[in-house]
Amino acid sequence: MISLLNDYSEGAHPRILALLTEHNLAQCAGYGEDVYSEQAKALIQQHLHNEHAQIHLVSGGTQANTVIIKSILRPHEAVIAAQSGHIAVHETGAIEATGHKVIVAPSGADGKLTPESIADICHSHTDEHMVKPKLVYISQTTENGSVYTVDELTAIRACCDALGLYLHIDGARLGAALAANKALSLALIAQIADVFYIGGTKNGALIGEAIVIVNSDLQDAFRFVMKQHGALLAKGRLLGIQFLGLFEDKIFFESAQNAHANAMYLAEGLRALGCEFLTPPQSNQIFPIFPNSVMAALQEQFAFYTWQAMDAERSAVRLVTSWASDIENIVLFLQQAETLLNEYSVS
Amino acid sequence: MISLLNDYSEGAHPRILALLTEHNLAQCAGYGEDVYSEQAKALIQQHLHNEHAQIHLVSGGTQANTVIIKSILRPHEAVIAAQSGHIAVHETGAIEATGHKVIVAPSGADGKLTPESIADICHSHTDEHMVKPKLVYISQTTENGSVYTVDELTAIRACCDALGLYLHIDGARLGAALAANKALSLALIAQIADVFYIGGTKNGALIGEAIVIVNSDLQDAFRFVMKQHGALLAKGRLLGIQFLGLFEDKIFFESAQNAHANAMYLAEGLRALGCEFLTPPQSNQIFPIFPNSVMAALQEQFAFYTWQAMDAERSAVRLVTSWASDIENIVLFLQQAETLLNEYSVS
Amino acid sequence: MISLLNDYSEGAHPRILALLTEHNLAQCAGYGEDVYSEQAKALIQQHLHNEHAQIHLVSGGTQANTVIIKSILRPHEAVIAAQSGHIAVHETGAIEATGHKVIVAPSGADGKLTPESIADICHSHTDEHMVKPKLVYISQTTENGSVYTVDELTAIRACCDALGLYLHIDGARLGAALAANKALSLALIAQIADVFYIGGTKNGALIGEAIVIVNSDLQDAFRFVMKQHGALLAKGRLLGIQFLGLFEDKIFFESAQNAHANAMYLAEGLRALGCEFLTPPQSNQIFPIFPNSVMAALQEQFAFYTWQAMDAERSAVRLVTSWASDIENIVLFLQQAETLLNEYSVS
Amino acid sequence: MISLLNDYSEGAHPRILALLTEHNLAQCAGYGEDVYSEQAKALIQQHLHNEHAQIHLVSGGTQANTVIIKSILRPHEAVIAAQSGHIAVHETGAIEATGHKVIVAPSGADGKLTPESIADICHSHTDEHMVKPKLVYISQTTENGSVYTVDELTAIRACCDALGLYLHIDGARLGAALAANKALSLALIAQIADVFYIGGTKNGALIGEAIVIVNSDLQDAFRFVMKQHGALLAKGRLLGIQFLGLFEDKIFFESAQNAHANAMYLAEGLRALGCEFLTPPQSNQIFPIFPNSVMAALQEQFAFYTWQAMDAERSAVRLVTSWASDIENIVLFLQQAETLLNEYSVS
Repeated sequence: MISLLNDYSEGAHPRILALLTEHNLAQCAGYGEDVYSEQAKALIQQHLHNEHAQIHLVSGGTQANTVIIKSILRPHEAVIAAQSGHIAVHETGAIEATGHKVIVAPSGADGKLTPESIADICHSHTDEHMVKPKLVYISQTTENGSVYTVDELTAIRACCDALGLYLHIDGARLGAALAANKALSLALIAQIADVFYIGGTKNGALIGEAIVIVNSDLQDAFRFVMKQHGALLAKGRLLGIQFLGLFEDKIFFESAQNAHANAMYLAEGLRALGCEFLTPPQSNQIFPIFPNSVMAALQEQFAFYTWQAMDAERSAVRLVTSWASDIENIVLFLQQAETLLNEYSVS
Repeated sequence: MISLLNDYSEGAHPRILALLTEHNLAQCAGYGEDVYSEQAKALIQQHLHNEHAQIHLVSGGTQANTVIIKSILRPHEAVIAAQSGHIAVHETGAIEATGHKVIVAPSGADGKLTPESIADICHSHTDEHMVKPKLVYISQTTENGSVYTVDELTAIRACCDALGLYLHIDGARLGAALAANKALSLALIAQIADVFYIGGTKNGALIGEAIVIVNSDLQDAFRFVMKQHGALLAKGRLLGIQFLGLFEDKIFFESAQNAHANAMYLAEGLRALGCEFLTPPQSNQIFPIFPNSVMAALQEQFAFYTWQAMDAERSAVRLVTSWASDIENIVLFLQQAETLLNEYSVS
Repeated sequence: MISLLNDYSEGAHPRILALLTEHNLAQCAGYGEDVYSEQAKALIQQHLHNEHAQIHLVSGGTQANTVIIKSILRPHEAVIAAQSGHIAVHETGAIEATGHKVIVAPSGADGKLTPESIADICHSHTDEHMVKPKLVYISQTTENGSVYTVDELTAIRACCDALGLYLHIDGARLGAALAANKALSLALIAQIADVFYIGGTKNGALIGEAIVIVNSDLQDAFRFVMKQHGALLAKGRLLGIQFLGLFEDKIFFESAQNAHANAMYLAEGLRALGCEFLTPPQSNQIFPIFPNSVMAALQEQFAFYTWQAMDAERSAVRLVTSWASDIENIVLFLQQAETLLNEYSVS
Repeated sequence: MISLLNDYSEGAHPRILALLTEHNLAQCAGYGEDVYSEQAKALIQQHLHNEHAQIHLVSGGTQANTVIIKSILRPHEAVIAAQSGHIAVHETGAIEATGHKVIVAPSGADGKLTPESIADICHSHTDEHMVKPKLVYISQTTENGSVYTVDELTAIRACCDALGLYLHIDGARLGAALAANKALSLALIAQIADVFYIGGTKNGALIGEAIVIVNSDLQDAFRFVMKQHGALLAKGRLLGIQFLGLFEDKIFFESAQNAHANAMYLAEGLRALGCEFLTPPQSNQIFPIFPNSVMAALQEQFAFYTWQAMDAERSAVRLVTSWASDIENIVLFLQQAETLLNEYSVS
């Protein structure tokens, strides 16, 4: 069974494991103050073109979002997210567990927030009987595989400035976004966001996300909040060595490129077979629509999620590629799909 | 510089890294439902002689304590800990951040709770104007390196039963306790505690603690609380493979034995040199007392913490050994100490 | 200026103040254990036909909802509410501040939850990556003045039973509901809900809501949670005497009846003038639609809220009557409206 | 049975009830924006000699402390209190329920914090593994009836300034302190504290505490936090009218003076009978020591709390006077005590 379920099915890029092994017995400071973490942070700052950005390494995305939002907001303040946003749906109320409401904005199939939806929310929150929106959360790429353009990001930034809101970008799949849109860069993201994180787990690392706090007003005492939330690993070296490897050896960008290229090849191939898509394929998550019988037959050989029933006969599915995807498996998928779709159209 | 600062200065036991590398490209389910985690849990259940114990793997000790306590307590309930307990002092208010008071009991130099101190607290919490004690937290070994005996643990268990309290044992250094007292075993701990965790981070793993929920009343929906707290790793395999290695290959017990043997050798050697100790050396953390000048000279070659000033001239220090400790370094430390103490007594 | 803004613009029913004055110097126990509170609770139990129902008196509605929900839910559990539900919108994130998500169901103009909307939410919350719905919150009357029928309540109860959910009824305006629908009674509400509260603040008291916990599984330690939330008044007598007055002297029912009769008279009068309504007038909050110029002219003499623009020329407004409403003012309003509407239709 | 149990056994000063009755049917704005609240706040500002102080009226002391502390602290920050401080012991973990640790300083029989104890705590909280002390909480009068002198308050203020701490004074019995020490005044308290509250519940009101936020850095959005915590009463007039009465008619000061004079008369009388005291009588709570048999006999006629066993034969008790205390009852108590003590000394 070949899995296209997600981008965290395998371990780490082999080079990452090699580095962990190479430095294994060196003794170093705990809790993220090791030399590897220091070097990794300096390296990331270079990519950001911003030596004042504060960087913290944590183990996962829910943890990153929770610590960031908890650290920023006062008790009565809330975060705005798209209805399909990860913090709004798939983090088991982690943000609410820190005391804050997630205000959801209706979002289309692309899962994006817009300046209009943000402004609408702010204008309807008028007094102390309602929470005060203070932070905007967007995911890049979104949970639906779409990618915010530079113009869209710039417009959201302007909207945040006008309304006195901070902007946090969930970059669990930021590598995928950079691979999908060459106009984007880490430096650009650092210019637009107040805070964001660079996802390692879904892009070549065993675990690890690098939180970047650009806005200096939000930097104070962040390590306290991390520790309080169990996000300071005793062996912070585990994160430091991995991010050093990701950026020193460009594994971060190469891993994302591999995932992207495989996804685009797959999308092109499916389109050539006459497939329609739930949303336009943009990044390493694509959502083709298959007849249910074809879907079922494919699922005998490939693991992937059924996403949404389109009608009585057809469903959209989610296919995800990763740093570890092998083009041979993609070719196999396309061949199998072609055979099944042909059989289906004949029947 | 040789470090005796703590037991998390190095990476992982080489066999752990080898296993991670060996299984790296196998595709498996996320969020702790991978085959390695399943196997590791089954193996641990065997060690516990309890197939009904529920096991969950998380990344660190603060996270383990927080998720456990948050999951167990209702809003008005509190946890009792020794004044020197990790949750009371060194977790940046993580328990309070989940809404619960940590009631501290005065504890002696050994850092242990006693049935008397627990009962005193319960009897002074009389009505709804005060929190309701519901859970007892002890660390085995304690933060001061002491080890609860079987009798002490049994007495605390009886006290908890009499007072309607749950018992949680923080086993960040449970391996060290087992190595220190052969009358203890994982199975015994599982008979005494309602919930506990087996520390991997400080005993041979890169990261990882195995939470064991013995009391079935406390097992419901634990994974929800984990996810809410950011404690479900997407690549749960990282924890599964490590705990499989720790217990399949007995690395857990051998690592603890190495730390213990080195600490006892060091303690014996220092005692032979006439050293006194803040507390009797029992496990891999020992607290010898040195003249300040000797301490300072030792710290030029060895890294370790000054723990407590004894008087104007002498200080207790903390020396910690680990799974990675090398007896040659211990011998070196003793030789250096002998030389310095001789010089000191002559002067 | 005559206010139709809300039902809490005046003080208390004069009989309540008389009772407070009458018993003023009697010394009694604090924190709700006074003789008046005990008597009031016994009296309410009689109205409920349920001597096992646990009753607690608190100062306000947000406090009642917060303490109830906080006491019931475990950390990962959530409450379902209509999009327009008070806890979802107008309590400044009070529920989230206790760590729990409020899952909103889309609701129509009537602001009601339906079994279908509840079931949809439960079916879409499938695993530990999402919060677990455990409690349903409805308001009776709703925030839009509508009243759940006995059949609707029964259907929601059945839905809750089928899905393993508790049901909480926010009765800030429960008096208004009883006045509006004679098939309802306190005893019936107590048969349907697991927990609810009887609003005093908006129905003749100075302050005060009586929380009723019918389900014995939810009764344990409730006073602890109240105290923790600052909801145990030192002079609990203030609440006890008022609820004693409300039910001993039937002020509760008479006050609600006065508000209802005034509202119905007003609604009938407006309908006779050709007014349309945003939602069918059912209780003491009604939502007639006026031409904007008429509305503005009325607002020179009467205070009331503009609720919603219907189109460029017309707006729905909210008119609220109370225990203290005087029919002469209602007649005045109708006269004025008639004059203004006539002028408008001529122009 | 005559109660000396506490200072909240009776209702309100009759003038307060008269004012509530007088203004009962006036319609006014809700949620603390009524004309009475506005007038009361202006009046209090005059007493403070500070027109920039922000004033908010809430229903009780636990609520006041909770909202204040929650509003001020960031997640990792903690409040320092005496071991006997109300927030540390008798608020059912209300502060921890908002996520913050209460760090307790050992305190003597007087229940006071000292600059030394505050500094000790700050110096032992060294890094991000521990919470960060940010706020000092003292009660004036203390829970033990003692009164901070101007010098003591000034020294604590200086200590707070030196250490970057805010100072909050719990004034549940601030009236009692002002009556006990004429060098104190509301204006002086407002110069020393960053925030404090003026207790009404225990000094003549039915309910109500006036929170004063002097430090403008702490004023932002306070009403949001109040509303979130259920501390904005719909009929805020109930608080406004009472505080207007308390300060317009000097009931606040007269009530405190009555409690104080009765307590001092009682203390002098007992001293004349040879009684010893647990702590020197300073305010409306006094702690005389009686032979147990005398105590028991007194408790047949007077209600009061046994506070602490002194030895096998004697106990300290707590006697509390209030705004409503009648000197005739005090005289009766002294006569009875004299008789019983005489009998005891003869036997």
